[in-house]
Amino acid sequence: MNSFGTIFRVSIFGESHGESVGILIDGCPAGLSLGPDDLMADIERRKGGQRTGTTPRTEEDLPLFKSGLFKGKTTGAPLLICFENKNTRSSDYEKQRSIPRPGHADFVATQKFGGYEDYRGSGHFSGRLTLPLVAAGGVAKKLLGSILIEATLTEVGGEGDIEKGIERAIANHDSVGGIVECRVKGLPIGLGEPFFDATESMLAHAVFAVPAIRGIEFGTGFAAAKLFGSQHNDAIENSQGTTRTNHAGGVVGGLTNGNDLVFRVAVKPTSSTPKEQRSLNTGSGEQESFTIKGRHDLCIALRVPVVIEAVTAIVLADLMLREQRIDRVLQ
Amino acid sequence: MNSFGTIFRVSIFGESHGESVGILIDGCPAGLSLGPDDLMADIERRKGGQRTGTTPRTEEDLPLFKSGLFKGKTTGAPLLICFENKNTRSSDYEKQRSIPRPGHADFVATQKFGGYEDYRGSGHFSGRLTLPLVAAGGVAKKLLGSILIEATLTEVGGEGDIEKGIERAIANHDSVGGIVECRVKGLPIGLGEPFFDATESMLAHAVFAVPAIRGIEFGTGFAAAKLFGSQHNDAIENSQGTTRTNHAGGVVGGLTNGNDLVFRVAVKPTSSTPKEQRSLNTGSGEQESFTIKGRHDLCIALRVPVVIEAVTAIVLADLMLREQRIDRVLQ
Amino acid sequence: MNSFGTIFRVSIFGESHGESVGILIDGCPAGLSLGPDDLMADIERRKGGQRTGTTPRTEEDLPLFKSGLFKGKTTGAPLLICFENKNTRSSDYEKQRSIPRPGHADFVATQKFGGYEDYRGSGHFSGRLTLPLVAAGGVAKKLLGSILIEATLTEVGGEGDIEKGIERAIANHDSVGGIVECRVKGLPIGLGEPFFDATESMLAHAVFAVPAIRGIEFGTGFAAAKLFGSQHNDAIENSQGTTRTNHAGGVVGGLTNGNDLVFRVAVKPTSSTPKEQRSLNTGSGEQESFTIKGRHDLCIALRVPVVIEAVTAIVLADLMLREQRIDRVLQ
Amino acid sequence: MNSFGTIFRVSIFGESHGESVGILIDGCPAGLSLGPDDLMADIERRKGGQRTGTTPRTEEDLPLFKSGLFKGKTTGAPLLICFENKNTRSSDYEKQRSIPRPGHADFVATQKFGGYEDYRGSGHFSGRLTLPLVAAGGVAKKLLGSILIEATLTEVGGEGDIEKGIERAIANHDSVGGIVECRVKGLPIGLGEPFFDATESMLAHAVFAVPAIRGIEFGTGFAAAKLFGSQHNDAIENSQGTTRTNHAGGVVGGLTNGNDLVFRVAVKPTSSTPKEQRSLNTGSGEQESFTIKGRHDLCIALRVPVVIEAVTAIVLADLMLREQRIDRVLQ
Repeated sequence: MNSFGTIFRVSIFGESHGESVGILIDGCPAGLSLGPDDLMADIERRKGGQRTGTTPRTEEDLPLFKSGLFKGKTTGAPLLICFENKNTRSSDYEKQRSIPRPGHADFVATQKFGGYEDYRGSGHFSGRLTLPLVAAGGVAKKLLGSILIEATLTEVGGEGDIEKGIERAIANHDSVGGIVECRVKGLPIGLGEPFFDATESMLAHAVFAVPAIRGIEFGTGFAAAKLFGSQHNDAIENSQGTTRTNHAGGVVGGLTNGNDLVFRVAVKPTSSTPKEQRSLNTGSGEQESFTIKGRHDLCIALRVPVVIEAVTAIVLADLMLREQRIDRVLQ
Repeated sequence: MNSFGTIFRVSIFGESHGESVGILIDGCPAGLSLGPDDLMADIERRKGGQRTGTTPRTEEDLPLFKSGLFKGKTTGAPLLICFENKNTRSSDYEKQRSIPRPGHADFVATQKFGGYEDYRGSGHFSGRLTLPLVAAGGVAKKLLGSILIEATLTEVGGEGDIEKGIERAIANHDSVGGIVECRVKGLPIGLGEPFFDATESMLAHAVFAVPAIRGIEFGTGFAAAKLFGSQHNDAIENSQGTTRTNHAGGVVGGLTNGNDLVFRVAVKPTSSTPKEQRSLNTGSGEQESFTIKGRHDLCIALRVPVVIEAVTAIVLADLMLREQRIDRVLQ
Repeated sequence: MNSFGTIFRVSIFGESHGESVGILIDGCPAGLSLGPDDLMADIERRKGGQRTGTTPRTEEDLPLFKSGLFKGKTTGAPLLICFENKNTRSSDYEKQRSIPRPGHADFVATQKFGGYEDYRGSGHFSGRLTLPLVAAGGVAKKLLGSILIEATLTEVGGEGDIEKGIERAIANHDSVGGIVECRVKGLPIGLGEPFFDATESMLAHAVFAVPAIRGIEFGTGFAAAKLFGSQHNDAIENSQGTTRTNHAGGVVGGLTNGNDLVFRVAVKPTSSTPKEQRSLNTGSGEQESFTIKGRHDLCIALRVPVVIEAVTAIVLADLMLREQRIDRVLQ
Repeated sequence: MNSFGTIFRVSIFGESHGESVGILIDGCPAGLSLGPDDLMADIERRKGGQRTGTTPRTEEDLPLFKSGLFKGKTTGAPLLICFENKNTRSSDYEKQRSIPRPGHADFVATQKFGGYEDYRGSGHFSGRLTLPLVAAGGVAKKLLGSILIEATLTEVGGEGDIEKGIERAIANHDSVGGIVECRVKGLPIGLGEPFFDATESMLAHAVFAVPAIRGIEFGTGFAAAKLFGSQHNDAIENSQGTTRTNHAGGVVGGLTNGNDLVFRVAVKPTSSTPKEQRSLNTGSGEQESFTIKGRHDLCIALRVPVVIEAVTAIVLADLMLREQRIDRVLQ
């Protein structure tokens, strides 16, 4: 299903070149002060067109609140946030139809949906769907109050100096990936469930809904597999649960432990590389060379941090509500 | 919640030193031939006590079918599989109570459950809960028929030669972690959903329910972040969707693409290292040195592959049933 | 939550005097031919203003498909159907604010949502929300193909002659209720689950989501409690499960039995009676007399049959998909 | 699925003549003092064999707590309650196999489960499954504290004098049904959701999971359809929401309104009447006369009140937890 969450439940919809994209939020507490201004900063962070390496497509990306808001506050009823699609050039994609693009969902979507899928600009599989995610994330962040979520791009194309990684991509006329690290401060102790709704389970579930993510690791992550237990264990220092080190990344036994929650995700290089590629022509049955048309990011990872923050906020808002750490009616 | 799945739904219960552990499976199709023999091989693989590096605790681990089975076949009604706990030495844990063990859930569980949790041998957080997971995985594997799931340990303590990694742990009187790789052959194309139930989302959700997992990556995973798009993209070769390379690990746009599904997980070093450690004495409020008592694995990763296979099978059985690729009544 | 269904999942949103009402449908199979024309007949049946006893408020009630539809067919992605609210006179309701109307949700909504609810025209509790229900029901009916759902008003204000019941209401300057009977032909045998998702459970769940419903009974219903077992039992006649009588109303043990599914619902008299009433003035704390302003139906039951058909169709589409009796991709 | 609830989630399993019946409760708060004694009074009320009109089958019906309980209190982990089946005489049912009993699930179960179902004593469809419901209801009642749930049998075979109704059944060598009324005192205002999780929706869903229920009505129920609005509306009297009358049965707009919650259910006459019946012999394809063997209640309605209380308690515990009106850790 295209939904996530138990109490704070988001349901996503829309297509890249259809009428709209958006998200329905059910279970948002009543009394949350909310308006477009609360979401615009994150929406701007996500938007392409402002810097080297991102797509020149610029929608206005104005969030339209269609329900659940009254006199500037949430009502407790479902909140629908829509974005109109205005600036679409679908003909680019019609031509591509018979040659499924490598790395994209073209081929598998046709198999799954029998050819009925909206294939224009990846349709429902498009990165444009991260826009409503960011909007819902903005609502979730407001709910989370003083809990601070911060994701940053720490590596591009293998380079810790991000600009250098981008330059290398430009110089090579190719796309690149990157690493995003997310850190959450101020979480209570004990959030999550042992089975199956471990905090890591919930976060990983939501994070892999973001296009282009190929891996996630918490705390020391994959490097932990090389350590001895005596090195990896985080000694507990005080009654607040503060640990000397944070190899666990703030989660033990599936539950938050009061230290910073830290995880990293791997973002693959943008599938729409400017380089010539080969794929199957499903009409002729022959291999064919082609070059991707349309507007694309050289490094989609540049736009991912705010999306990771968004899904993290969505997961945490749900867990906080489930566990009664946020009230159903706000004061 | 301690449940997972939409149509094939498993609900886990039990404690390490309580009366039993087990799993309730709802939505298993009727007509599946099933008995203890179908589960024993995997249960043996999971069992400790047989090789260097695993705990000497040996329960008989016999699966008891308490409902849902009739004349050797599933009935379509809920299937309850129980394991009795017989060989428990709880006094080991009583003494440890005031000093929460680093890397374990002791401290966070007390915070979450107000001290009411069964703390003996990690209680509901125990690795013993992977036994019912393996049992449910065995049922799911039978359902999956010719789909083959194989997980192997590819690295221990940073060594590709597993025995060498274990020996190093023994020599250092310390615990170690490892890397498990899982590969699934024979999946149909198009399994999974774009948002939020991507195949990677569902698998990651279930995998992080397994204790000690710190990371998961699909296909080329974290290394993909260092590649160019032209290197990472898997060119489609034929109408079955076969790709020349498999950097994607068999999943594109959240959907299986007909190639082998491949992912790797990082297993942390066993938290119960034999080395002396320091932690907080919650009674005195002072730091204290202590050594873990009880029976423990030096390298829990040795026992993890069959558990990863199990949760993978559970996820795939659910997706296959949801998408009508397995019948509700088997012939 | 404001959602219903496991595989065919509907999520409702909107307020009577807000910007819009609508419904998000997730899990609708791909390839269903669909357009406004498929929904308009039922939307017209639901609409007020055409006959004695229904409200003169007339919205255009045009369904706007905002996602999930491409080239006139469903894509398999979420389907969003919106209705704009154009003809709203909210000032009527502002004045009423301090005197919660008996029979309406005014008082309880304020208690639940802390006064943040959109109170105009009952807000999210409004009968206008049945419009998106009818739209989703229309989609579900198309999915159900040859399965025929027909609900009729069999009684108004205690009269089997409906016109007579309405006339009595007009003559008394008061509102009246009624009985709606729903009959479904062509269902397969075995739909539903013994616990907890009995066909009756699912239908009753959805039916009580319709405003003003006070009771539901299947087959002989409450009258069954007065019969002997030998009278009530339906003798099975042939291998299709046809029964001589249909006291069971087509459901046995929670499962459909191949005979007509039959149930009746009780609709209360419209709470907004034209008669003067008394209620609490929450400002003064005193009892006060008042007369309801605004546009209202004398007999809401007149508009209920199509809504009951809609929720019935939604429930059955979900059960049929769950049990693999409708394909995920239509031919 | 055989589960119910969002936060307080019960999953039922077992068969009448299998090894056991039971229920798994997930989401029960930690710290609830609990033992067999808390459940025995209700289990005794449900038990047959003590009075005229109920079956002589007497299991010991001792609840076995297999997980989730430690030192006499719930731990917050899943709680498994099992009942062993000891006193089974399956051969009675083997003979009946080819003649599906009218009113029972025999015929539909075979159609649904392909003949793999455990058919002995109705298997998973048996009234014996109400035993674990009563156990879970007992847990829920303890959670609900001072909220009082009371269901009583108000009518048997059309007689308000229950004994008279039973005597008439005995005299006629036939089975009879009845009416059960349930009343809940002490509920907070505002429990439930407008769509789809109205309090009536949730209660009706759970109530129809109880075998033999044919109808449910709230407050004035079906009789409301004959009243004028001015008669049916409950005038609000004070700031606690107390109404002069209670035609609504304590629920308005899907939400509790602070007055007594009142509903009635219709129980059909026991399908296993001692009278000779006719049904299809599925072997010969001919109609055949037969008389039901085995131990059965003349009036199953006698045992239903405690089951209705149980499912009511389960629903309310879930709603109370969802809406944060019961703490996740009890003091």
